[in-house]
Amino acid sequence: MKKEISAEIMTIGDELLYGQVVDTNSAWLGQELGKTGIRVKQITSISDNPDAICEALTQAISRVDVVLITGGLGPTKDDLTKHTLTRYFNTELQLHQPSLDDVEDIFRKYNRPMLEVNRQQAFLPASCTPVRNVLGTAPGMLFQEQDTVIVSMPGVPFEMKRMVTDTVLPFLQQHFQLPQIMHKVVQTIGIGESFLAEKIADWEDTLPPNLKLAYLPYLAGVRLRLTGFSDNQPVLEAQMQERIDALAALLPDNIFAFGEVTLEEAIGQLLKERNLTISTAESCTGGLVAHKLTSVPGSSAYFTGSVVAYSNDVKKVQLGVSSETLETHGAVSEETVKAMAQGVRRLLKTDIGISTSGIAGPDGGTPEKPVGTIWIAYADAHQTIARKINYNKTRLLNMEYTTLQVLDLVRQSLRRRVEE
Amino acid sequence: MKKEISAEIMTIGDELLYGQVVDTNSAWLGQELGKTGIRVKQITSISDNPDAICEALTQAISRVDVVLITGGLGPTKDDLTKHTLTRYFNTELQLHQPSLDDVEDIFRKYNRPMLEVNRQQAFLPASCTPVRNVLGTAPGMLFQEQDTVIVSMPGVPFEMKRMVTDTVLPFLQQHFQLPQIMHKVVQTIGIGESFLAEKIADWEDTLPPNLKLAYLPYLAGVRLRLTGFSDNQPVLEAQMQERIDALAALLPDNIFAFGEVTLEEAIGQLLKERNLTISTAESCTGGLVAHKLTSVPGSSAYFTGSVVAYSNDVKKVQLGVSSETLETHGAVSEETVKAMAQGVRRLLKTDIGISTSGIAGPDGGTPEKPVGTIWIAYADAHQTIARKINYNKTRLLNMEYTTLQVLDLVRQSLRRRVEE
Repeated sequence: MKKEISAEIMTIGDELLYGQVVDTNSAWLGQELGKTGIRVKQITSISDNPDAICEALTQAISRVDVVLITGGLGPTKDDLTKHTLTRYFNTELQLHQPSLDDVEDIFRKYNRPMLEVNRQQAFLPASCTPVRNVLGTAPGMLFQEQDTVIVSMPGVPFEMKRMVTDTVLPFLQQHFQLPQIMHKVVQTIGIGESFLAEKIADWEDTLPPNLKLAYLPYLAGVRLRLTGFSDNQPVLEAQMQERIDALAALLPDNIFAFGEVTLEEAIGQLLKERNLTISTAESCTGGLVAHKLTSVPGSSAYFTGSVVAYSNDVKKVQLGVSSETLETHGAVSEETVKAMAQGVRRLLKTDIGISTSGIAGPDGGTPEKPVGTIWIAYADAHQTIARKINYNKTRLLNMEYTTLQVLDLVRQSLRRRVEE
Repeated sequence: MKKEISAEIMTIGDELLYGQVVDTNSAWLGQELGKTGIRVKQITSISDNPDAICEALTQAISRVDVVLITGGLGPTKDDLTKHTLTRYFNTELQLHQPSLDDVEDIFRKYNRPMLEVNRQQAFLPASCTPVRNVLGTAPGMLFQEQDTVIVSMPGVPFEMKRMVTDTVLPFLQQHFQLPQIMHKVVQTIGIGESFLAEKIADWEDTLPPNLKLAYLPYLAGVRLRLTGFSDNQPVLEAQMQERIDALAALLPDNIFAFGEVTLEEAIGQLLKERNLTISTAESCTGGLVAHKLTSVPGSSAYFTGSVVAYSNDVKKVQLGVSSETLETHGAVSEETVKAMAQGVRRLLKTDIGISTSGIAGPDGGTPEKPVGTIWIAYADAHQTIARKINYNKTRLLNMEYTTLQVLDLVRQSLRRRVEE
């Protein structure tokens, strides 16, 4: 095995520390570096402040082989990164003519007058290798110090991404002669982290040292990520696939997809494959199930529409739930939620109807039906299935959890139909 | 003025470094600490690795007064934070009975058998002050070392947030006797950051030194946050209110609320005050407008229901849009979106009906109606108003932007009605 190459990501900007901007650059860089076989050991966000930048840089250089810096290269006065790096690497600014040509091109293209501050952006530290920025006015800078490669880039995501893809990653791949790394993701639902860990403990314990497993829990289940290291890509692929197959056999009920697929995408795929259409009748989820289904591009192929039936009147008039059912059992009941699923299926002429009715809170609970009492149902031409959920976190989380559960009910029902 | 208290945020987890999860906890913590008067100097994300945790912790303790740690407290084997902290602070784990009671309560509530790994979560370092977690099974831990306060919390956002709000911030406020700080937020919509800055430049330039303004842009406008520092709370309150009133006079059309209020909450308030009901007819937003409206507790007082009309059939049969309108003008047109708003208002018997129809992308665009062409409408007993939007980022952002715009159309229409 070759030595593992490690990286640190440094993001610079007070807006990150004050929480005004969520740092999405780091996650993107982490993914891209990971795919190339470089392991990110630390992400550090610091202030637009020379001392903070120098201290963080010294520590990073002592820890890792690659330091990627984003932010602080704009033309305004609070952007100090370039001057700080020039002093840090004990060099001086000099005009870089190709960068000046690029900056002038951009101003010509947008037909705007170029200011002196923009011309200044083409002055770069003499000891750096400039990294071309075809989408903006701030070039990147690549330094080498004590066997560490340091690259400074703008914080604007699309400029930074283009520079990384076009220049930085190809340079790193060649410079470090990188080993192979591979990720496989298994999406599970309906099993908690500790139960899952217990169920697959034997499988996990026998993983070879070059494979690592991570548990990534979310609201209704866990994403499992297997990471493999090897110099032989085809062998690694086969080795990992064998392990994934063995894992799948241990979890026959809980896996809804392999790879980076959302539950709503997986349901959409199932419906498309089976040429089925779906509609929703939503009370407590208030449209969230429809929103999730339609967030998938191309969902109009299987999603027709929805009735959000918040009031009992809409449940009666639109969905045909009988007054008797509502009076005898209440809006939050097995009978009502079944009638809603059947009703919307009939009304919107779809193969499948799904429904939700519950008490999302914080108000509206009773001793018999406390907040978090939720019914969901699935109806098709052959069957109607209802399930009761008890889940009470916040109003929004209750809605999101219910949405995941009713989508999973579709998955389970479709699978059962095939098996029968 | 008292000494400024500084903080560092440490987030632990390989999923952050690999970029599989975007770190949103840090931004939230940065905002909350800022509101309390604590300045975040660094955010550090590191691996689930004892050495990395110890090294980062030592450096953080040397730099700042408060270290907030999230992540690595789950019951599975890759969660190492608790054991590492126990060794770091040279103490040992002991059973904390109140935490065990909490864990047992949670398992009783969900009617699930408790595993040994869950019981282990109630064993905490002897030298820490436990921080109660009412929403999950991993308690937090508060340590004090060299005048620095260190708090370790789970990475699950809603558990962490609740612990910070209920316990950590009140503790820090008392412990450090933080200076008085006050925030007033003004929510604007429909005006970009640079236009807004130009419009209020004179007002901003004359702010006294103890008042600071922050621009917090979001999808359809800017949140303005005025922060005031003073030891005299009543004087500060009066001083800030005077400035806010002056600001409001400069922005008669763009302010939808004062304080931490969402647009859907503001709309809900307007509807409640006027005793009006509302329904939605959604094509391109696919239920998102209904979801936003129903995310507000108590929204059943004014929200009756929705029809998500994704297919033209649903637009015709449910909403009564004529075949002629759909054929002559198309589903994405002023005529269709007006008919949809009127149709849902009639169908669900509400005072107001609102609608959306557009091309959210990535597919479905044509040369005449490219992706991002979106119509929205508002209808009540007196008038029907339609607006065209051109907005094309991603499918989801297009949906969210449209939702904000149609809700703002309600606000503008209601205001105009009152003025007439």
